[in-house]
Amino acid sequence: MTLRATIGTLLFAITLVSQMTVSSAVRADDALPSWNDGPSKSAIIEFVQAVTDKTGSRYVPPEERIATFDNDGTLWPSHPTYAQLAFAMDRIKALAPKHPEWKTKQPFKAVLDNDLKALAAAGEHGLVELVMASHAGMSTTEFEAIVTDWFAKARHPRFKRRYTELAYQPMLELLAYLRGNGFKTFIVSGGGVEFMRPITQAVYGIPPEQVVGSTIKTRYEVQNGKPVLMRLPEIDFIDDKTGKPIGINKFIGRRPIAAFGNSAGDREMLQWTGAGNGPRLMMLVFHDDSKREYAYGPAEGLPDTKFGTFPVSLMKEATQQGWVVISMKNEWARIFAFEK
Amino acid sequence: MTLRATIGTLLFAITLVSQMTVSSAVRADDALPSWNDGPSKSAIIEFVQAVTDKTGSRYVPPEERIATFDNDGTLWPSHPTYAQLAFAMDRIKALAPKHPEWKTKQPFKAVLDNDLKALAAAGEHGLVELVMASHAGMSTTEFEAIVTDWFAKARHPRFKRRYTELAYQPMLELLAYLRGNGFKTFIVSGGGVEFMRPITQAVYGIPPEQVVGSTIKTRYEVQNGKPVLMRLPEIDFIDDKTGKPIGINKFIGRRPIAAFGNSAGDREMLQWTGAGNGPRLMMLVFHDDSKREYAYGPAEGLPDTKFGTFPVSLMKEATQQGWVVISMKNEWARIFAFEK
Repeated sequence: MTLRATIGTLLFAITLVSQMTVSSAVRADDALPSWNDGPSKSAIIEFVQAVTDKTGSRYVPPEERIATFDNDGTLWPSHPTYAQLAFAMDRIKALAPKHPEWKTKQPFKAVLDNDLKALAAAGEHGLVELVMASHAGMSTTEFEAIVTDWFAKARHPRFKRRYTELAYQPMLELLAYLRGNGFKTFIVSGGGVEFMRPITQAVYGIPPEQVVGSTIKTRYEVQNGKPVLMRLPEIDFIDDKTGKPIGINKFIGRRPIAAFGNSAGDREMLQWTGAGNGPRLMMLVFHDDSKREYAYGPAEGLPDTKFGTFPVSLMKEATQQGWVVISMKNEWARIFAFEK
Repeated sequence: MTLRATIGTLLFAITLVSQMTVSSAVRADDALPSWNDGPSKSAIIEFVQAVTDKTGSRYVPPEERIATFDNDGTLWPSHPTYAQLAFAMDRIKALAPKHPEWKTKQPFKAVLDNDLKALAAAGEHGLVELVMASHAGMSTTEFEAIVTDWFAKARHPRFKRRYTELAYQPMLELLAYLRGNGFKTFIVSGGGVEFMRPITQAVYGIPPEQVVGSTIKTRYEVQNGKPVLMRLPEIDFIDDKTGKPIGINKFIGRRPIAAFGNSAGDREMLQWTGAGNGPRLMMLVFHDDSKREYAYGPAEGLPDTKFGTFPVSLMKEATQQGWVVISMKNEWARIFAFEK
């Protein structure tokens, strides 16, 4: 192909793409019905319009439109505790008959007593112990079946719904709006990748390969002539706090231009996103709606419930850095799809 | 818009157009012109037709059409040594004035003497030492710039071309043919992810987030108010041999239905791919063309050159398992795009 023909092909391609972008771009006034008019909705629309406007100075090519979302507390509730901790507790209870020593040993005793306060007090170390005892010792295929079965049977204690029905409706609309404008959406969660992947496509429209999270080590074995990956009781990577930018760099290899979180564990992901060149959008979901969901801080004088903490220092950093704080109470017309 | 962004847009446009052109499926007789008629080309076409035929019993939905490719020796040469080792050697030579002790210390002495035989003898441990000395101690942003600069300047010792010009033309056609038929293509390489990612989109049409490879640890730091990820002299993960299925499970979270390799390091990736349910395609590039490229084994009595070994046992397993061995000499009409 001559240079002239090449340029011709490229121009044709660009024409096609710009036509497609126009025809496929989602209009925000249709796309975000569960968002009240307010600073958060305005910030989203303004940002998306800027990065998709080919004639503007803030245009970003589609392949660089990477958006990362925390999961617990950002896309669905983290209260009264994380879905994955509820799963771990159910597993521990099921395995307890074989472990009589758990009756008196923390954090297992707290699980058997349904004592969330004691569990919160056990901290990250306690959670890791529970994960090791409940998430390892089987193949990846077996674990996927266990997780899938649990999601089918388990119900949230307050909403009496499957956990997969509790995705925040405004965030589902935001995910679809971003994808409709050429974004690639990723989950970047402190939760385990193999706990999330079986359900993220159905719940969020996010395929397994776009889920970044914490991992435990696996070992490749050939059992009866068939290869399996066995899950080992050994932490490989914790995708939380400084682990989030590290995980983004390792798994995705590009810096996001938009990042969404809700707690202290998301701080470094927002810092890392904000430190890139060009237009950026960083947002934090603030849980200030005890009536429809939950209200916790300790920012703004709300109680510190330990699961998905939003500290005063994070609120201060958000103000200083221009991160947009979403008030669930004021800015979300609807929280769950099942609401009237 | 920067030059890089412009190139990115054009590449994206080309990708879109190629996807559009073939959204009704690419015809193999147009798409694989550098493949001679033979068992490999037939196997590819038969497989792709089967998994894309909605009316057939072997249909696979597009989201499950995951294809993984080793890089060195599968998509481009691994001789006279790996591109990344050539890069490491150039870095070691540049850093040598500050390390007089390297003159007498292996494997550094072998690098300074250009002694590939001694380097091969240093084994994996030696390679790791070189990587630690040459790939760590800077930020991820700085490393990307160093790699990009090296790829612009370095030339392959035999072909006198940039390494990025040495992608095998038949494999580029195969990648495009698969993508044109709804496949998502991934690199799963023993090489370092941050060495490959700066060039995979331009060379292979594979974006950074679809590159799985070996990683070193990074640390999140805030320097002068700006967050950076510092590369540490510490191995995080080796994506080779049993590491390939582990890496596939960790980074992608789905089992491939097609996998392509060329050496002992790819054996477990092909086993893992083949162990899934439904139609599968496993292929191995066999380097038996010393005239146009290289010939090595030790399979088929060819010399064992240490870089990308194809052992006799791998050839035996390929026969037993129905993995298709591609003879470069007989089945590739053209190896490089620059050939007449």
